Amino acid sequence: MPTRAYAAQSATTPFEPFSFERRDPRPNDVAIAIEHCGVCHSDLHTARSEWGGTRYPCVPGHEIVGTVTAVGSDVTKFAVGDVVGVGCMVDSCLSCPSCQEGLEQYCERGFTGTYNGPAQEDGGNTYGGYSDHIVVREEFVLKIRHSRDQLPAVAPLLCAGITTWSPLRHWKVGPGQKVGVVGIGGLGHMGIKLAKALGAHVVAFTTSPSKREDAKALGADEVVVSRERSEMKAHTGSFDFILNTVAAPHDLDQFLMLLKRDGTMTLVGVPAEPHPSPSVGLLIFRRRSLAGSLIGGIAETQEMLDFCAEHNIVSDIEPIRIQEIETAYERMLKSDVKYRFVIDMASIKE
Amino acid sequence: MPTRAYAAQSATTPFEPFSFERRDPRPNDVAIAIEHCGVCHSDLHTARSEWGGTRYPCVPGHEIVGTVTAVGSDVTKFAVGDVVGVGCMVDSCLSCPSCQEGLEQYCERGFTGTYNGPAQEDGGNTYGGYSDHIVVREEFVLKIRHSRDQLPAVAPLLCAGITTWSPLRHWKVGPGQKVGVVGIGGLGHMGIKLAKALGAHVVAFTTSPSKREDAKALGADEVVVSRERSEMKAHTGSFDFILNTVAAPHDLDQFLMLLKRDGTMTLVGVPAEPHPSPSVGLLIFRRRSLAGSLIGGIAETQEMLDFCAEHNIVSDIEPIRIQEIETAYERMLKSDVKYRFVIDMASIKE
Repeated sequence: MPTRAYAAQSATTPFEPFSFERRDPRPNDVAIAIEHCGVCHSDLHTARSEWGGTRYPCVPGHEIVGTVTAVGSDVTKFAVGDVVGVGCMVDSCLSCPSCQEGLEQYCERGFTGTYNGPAQEDGGNTYGGYSDHIVVREEFVLKIRHSRDQLPAVAPLLCAGITTWSPLRHWKVGPGQKVGVVGIGGLGHMGIKLAKALGAHVVAFTTSPSKREDAKALGADEVVVSRERSEMKAHTGSFDFILNTVAAPHDLDQFLMLLKRDGTMTLVGVPAEPHPSPSVGLLIFRRRSLAGSLIGGIAETQEMLDFCAEHNIVSDIEPIRIQEIETAYERMLKSDVKYRFVIDMASIKE
Repeated sequence: MPTRAYAAQSATTPFEPFSFERRDPRPNDVAIAIEHCGVCHSDLHTARSEWGGTRYPCVPGHEIVGTVTAVGSDVTKFAVGDVVGVGCMVDSCLSCPSCQEGLEQYCERGFTGTYNGPAQEDGGNTYGGYSDHIVVREEFVLKIRHSRDQLPAVAPLLCAGITTWSPLRHWKVGPGQKVGVVGIGGLGHMGIKLAKALGAHVVAFTTSPSKREDAKALGADEVVVSRERSEMKAHTGSFDFILNTVAAPHDLDQFLMLLKRDGTMTLVGVPAEPHPSPSVGLLIFRRRSLAGSLIGGIAETQEMLDFCAEHNIVSDIEPIRIQEIETAYERMLKSDVKYRFVIDMASIKE
């Protein structure tokens, strides 16, 4: 299946049109015409090999929404014409304890990324959603129940949505709880919406006083500017859970001290340089935990999508043409986006 | 009640005999003749004001075993002649949510330490177990069901025992689990004994190859010398829980990577200088947690003492006379003790 894409050919060269062949659908595969693909910070890190280990050509994109164009003979859950999504993973071993528990993101043999591989069968590269088609085994395809006009804004749910949903659910966020969301970007803005929809009292933390009104518009009950000591102090020891979406190195203690006894702060971003070492005393004297969480499993991704469809939740996005990807990256680096760029894949034909 | 004790009068002067008056028992007080008192590293830190904030004269000691000599008119749980214990706390507000849940160590108004206060009523100093008598409100007195000859070795259960028991119970350590204990000292040796008695497969970690046999004798199923990379690597991703008793700054990542998905490492020691910052990636890619835990509540201290009596568990100790306290401190600083010094309080009359 001939496929049009945009690829980075090296860490230092801009994206260019790239053509390649997707495999013909196997019996358990679903072929998808991609309509929208969100632009995640991980795309940029990978395209520029900032984490190392990038395989070129690199076709990023793991917030994919499209329509099924063909299904293999063994596929039972999807039919041609279905609106579907693909997130960060396209394969895993499906037999280890983590996969068996529906936590494919923790596959003990390593999952296959939607881009940059490694493929389960040969360790090879995979090409993601900056392309007009993709072929994915049915276990990694999600049903989308939102209305058609919402689809561009659904795309970011496949990574930003599930990455925030999974920890909110794992740590049992719900009514009666006070929950913090640190950082109001691609992930954080979804964290606010989802925590609010789950019934929590949501406090957004930002370093930018200018984001106060934005955070309230997203659903935050309160907004705290984390550089204002007196604002922070007023919340000491009061949070059940804090979801920290900030990957830049920063002082974790200022948030740990806001947790109640037995509270947890979960990090979902990996900083390029370490955070300053967290205070052990802050952990010990209130039995607090500092944890991490990685995207989410396929079953809980479906749960999140269904929840969002039911509660009319989508991301706040800015649509772009694929030819604008380099500009979008530069703006993303300046946090100049509310809150996710989403590529309209029709543009790839231009 | 005239009381003989040993006190530090300043951070830089040695212990000397010190006489003072204990309060007459109030209606809810229990008066206790102290027979044995364990020597905890916190005693040394406080006596030498290494954490700051020490009130002098300082009479340390919070691993106290003795016999009831008098009870107030409202006391219902204890009678003259009972063998009892007192641990790290002698009072708290008893009304905040933590106290109401039996977690007095996390009292939201702050508990009163057995030594160094602050007293609930006036914020004043308290004098601990390096003395021949103590008067404690009945809610903070523990029943001891061990046999009389075991009493010296029971004393360290009141701090070292409960400090390791509480996290083992809170994180639900039991049969079928693989549990690590880092550090084989006063706390760690109890951690090994208790985790083993709770049914876990216990792996002890030490930097000293010379402690291998000792750790096995304490009940460890396996012993790993943490400086041996290949030994460590063999345990990657295999632990349900790790209890880390080492307060000296050290690399936490070497242990975090040994945790399974959803595993927790709990720290019970506060380092004087921060540990190197733990890797966020190690937390995220297996949804691991780094937590802290502080001593334990009164109800769980009683539970631990009863469990130990039933399972014939005591500490491994070296008895000393109170006049030897300075020498004991010097040896403790060199880890030259297996595994706890316990003062025979009869010596105070010499």
